[in-house]
Amino acid sequence: VKVYLAGPDVFLPDPQARGAALKAVCAAHGLRGVFPLDPIEDDPAWRALPEAQRIALRNEAHIRAACAVIANLSPFRGPSADVGTVFEIGFARALGLPIFAWSTDPRPFAARTRDFLGDAARHDTTGTRDAQGMLVEDFGCTDNLMLDGAVIASGGALLTPPPQLPYSDLDIFSGCVERAARLLR
Amino acid sequence: VKVYLAGPDVFLPDPQARGAALKAVCAAHGLRGVFPLDPIEDDPAWRALPEAQRIALRNEAHIRAACAVIANLSPFRGPSADVGTVFEIGFARALGLPIFAWSTDPRPFAARTRDFLGDAARHDTTGTRDAQGMLVEDFGCTDNLMLDGAVIASGGALLTPPPQLPYSDLDIFSGCVERAARLLR
Repeated sequence: VKVYLAGPDVFLPDPQARGAALKAVCAAHGLRGVFPLDPIEDDPAWRALPEAQRIALRNEAHIRAACAVIANLSPFRGPSADVGTVFEIGFARALGLPIFAWSTDPRPFAARTRDFLGDAARHDTTGTRDAQGMLVEDFGCTDNLMLDGAVIASGGALLTPPPQLPYSDLDIFSGCVERAARLLR
Repeated sequence: VKVYLAGPDVFLPDPQARGAALKAVCAAHGLRGVFPLDPIEDDPAWRALPEAQRIALRNEAHIRAACAVIANLSPFRGPSADVGTVFEIGFARALGLPIFAWSTDPRPFAARTRDFLGDAARHDTTGTRDAQGMLVEDFGCTDNLMLDGAVIASGGALLTPPPQLPYSDLDIFSGCVERAARLLR
């Protein structure tokens, strides 16, 4: 059973080693992890495309061929998850795939966003707003409600740790894979 | 022809006024803009769901019923677009809808991310990396390559301004609607 491993892990200094570590956890649970950098069979027509377009189409193809997505929602350069990962969750949701998500950050979205804003946060009767007056969403979700909502509606699960974990920690990822394997195997 | 207006505009102090302004531009081009906060016919079974889940399912329903998505990719609390918007682009992409995107920020993604990182940016032979050693994607795209890639592959368009515009500016949005109307009407 193929599962697509969405996440900003591709940006790490040694992404192939990271991909191998994530795949080993999947294999231990009887799942075949597909890392975004995994090649797909090369179509000659694709070679004329710019590299960014080839990568985008390859990742879409990986997701179309998978039975589920397991996504790393750890915050990335701001209070929310990496947008490449988020795009792929939306893509998988419309395809009807179950989505399993995990994060190494224990904070709810609103608390994490307030921490990010720091002194720029403003509070009024409508809630917390940033320096541009834009509301901080506060529904007790892990990230923007479209993400929590899609994971739930897809039949998947969203796992976060009790305390903060280092980015490299795989405990929560392992729990997520175990959960996915119970549904998929 | 219905077009879904994805964007963080729902977080503005007066989101209904903003929605009305965006819809007026759409109407001027013969399109019916659907704002995320627009109600859908209430299903009694939905009322038992938590509010966040109801909103997520309502927005998904709006997109399923639309002929295209016009998305505000202006940076939101970090170098990338709002993740709720990005989720909806991924969702629309898998549904096969054309995606039109606009931003008020003229910078390519890599330059904007370097500005965001400031002194935390590190440079080596592989490119620019953040304090966690994670690579700054640099393909000349407007945001993460999954977004630029999906817009292009969907048959849509991605418009950015020559100079920085205030968030409230609608010139680029109008250009985006005009472009969508030429395809859809």
